[in-house]
Amino acid sequence: MYPKSLQQLIEEFKKLPGVGNKTAERYALKVLEWDIEKIKSFSSQIIKTKEAIQFCSNCGNFSEESLCTICKDKERDHSIIMVVSSPRDILAIERLNEFKGLYHVTGGLISPLNHIMPEDLEIDSLVEKAQHNLKEVILALNSTMEGETTSLYIARKLKDKVLVSHLAQGLPMGGQLEYTDELTLLRSLDNRKKIEV
Amino acid sequence: MYPKSLQQLIEEFKKLPGVGNKTAERYALKVLEWDIEKIKSFSSQIIKTKEAIQFCSNCGNFSEESLCTICKDKERDHSIIMVVSSPRDILAIERLNEFKGLYHVTGGLISPLNHIMPEDLEIDSLVEKAQHNLKEVILALNSTMEGETTSLYIARKLKDKVLVSHLAQGLPMGGQLEYTDELTLLRSLDNRKKIEV
Repeated sequence: MYPKSLQQLIEEFKKLPGVGNKTAERYALKVLEWDIEKIKSFSSQIIKTKEAIQFCSNCGNFSEESLCTICKDKERDHSIIMVVSSPRDILAIERLNEFKGLYHVTGGLISPLNHIMPEDLEIDSLVEKAQHNLKEVILALNSTMEGETTSLYIARKLKDKVLVSHLAQGLPMGGQLEYTDELTLLRSLDNRKKIEV
Repeated sequence: MYPKSLQQLIEEFKKLPGVGNKTAERYALKVLEWDIEKIKSFSSQIIKTKEAIQFCSNCGNFSEESLCTICKDKERDHSIIMVVSSPRDILAIERLNEFKGLYHVTGGLISPLNHIMPEDLEIDSLVEKAQHNLKEVILALNSTMEGETTSLYIARKLKDKVLVSHLAQGLPMGGQLEYTDELTLLRSLDNRKKIEV
């Protein structure tokens, strides 16, 4: 048995996502090898970050100020909004360095089984934005049952107000036909594109 | 790009063993979802543990006091010492609930390539213990080149002072002959045991 305080630290590490007993033990023992300065920096940064990070009042992205750097950027096209379910998705899209509009975070997906209904998500505020000179709303939600339900719900709400599109669905790069699920195959067939030669 | 303080937290998590960018990101984002009380408990436990944990002055095990719970236990056999290279190994043996003697942590293994020489390890203190009514020293070091070098070194030092043994070597449980390395096979052949029927 480890001493009590070491066991308590292991329990704390087990609160991290996907961390079981073995990994928590490894983290705790490693941390004990650090000098006290390194430990204090680690420990205090967690609280500092929690206190510094808020959500952008316009789009819901992580931000250290009321408006995030993307919403504040005048170079970006404020007439196009990409709808994502979490701030993490923004980072994934930003890495492409391709999209130059703004974002809107719903904060989740409609999921009646998990008691997540449209009113629990940032959908009304999106409809509100659609009243003001928007050119396009791009739905970039997960390609899952819940993502598609949410996309459909939003698309209906925005109908006649603004052009609504969603990300293309089809074979992923490197995807092999024989291992691709039927729904994806069906979509890739429905959405087939003419080859221009 | 994440806000600066979030990025800093991700960097802190990357200091944990085996944690890369993706995992650190996942930890940091998860921690931000916690309420401030949970965060403070996590953050303060790290420092609390660092301050509480010391090493047992007798055996080198983790301890919250000068002597660890094992060395303080009068029920245990103080005339048998098992030599391990790290406090973690003690836990592995203790889980067996089989060994009832004391331990001695060397703090590492002899490794000239990594500039770890016998005098860097707790070997002299072990030799010192061997002067006082010891019945047996069990060497439980890793079955590696470095572990065996260290075992041999210690065995020579303790020669004529006390009975020295080491853990048996052979096929691991579930080990398949065709996938077993030659050295292990050779050892398991050398150490074969007569079947009593």
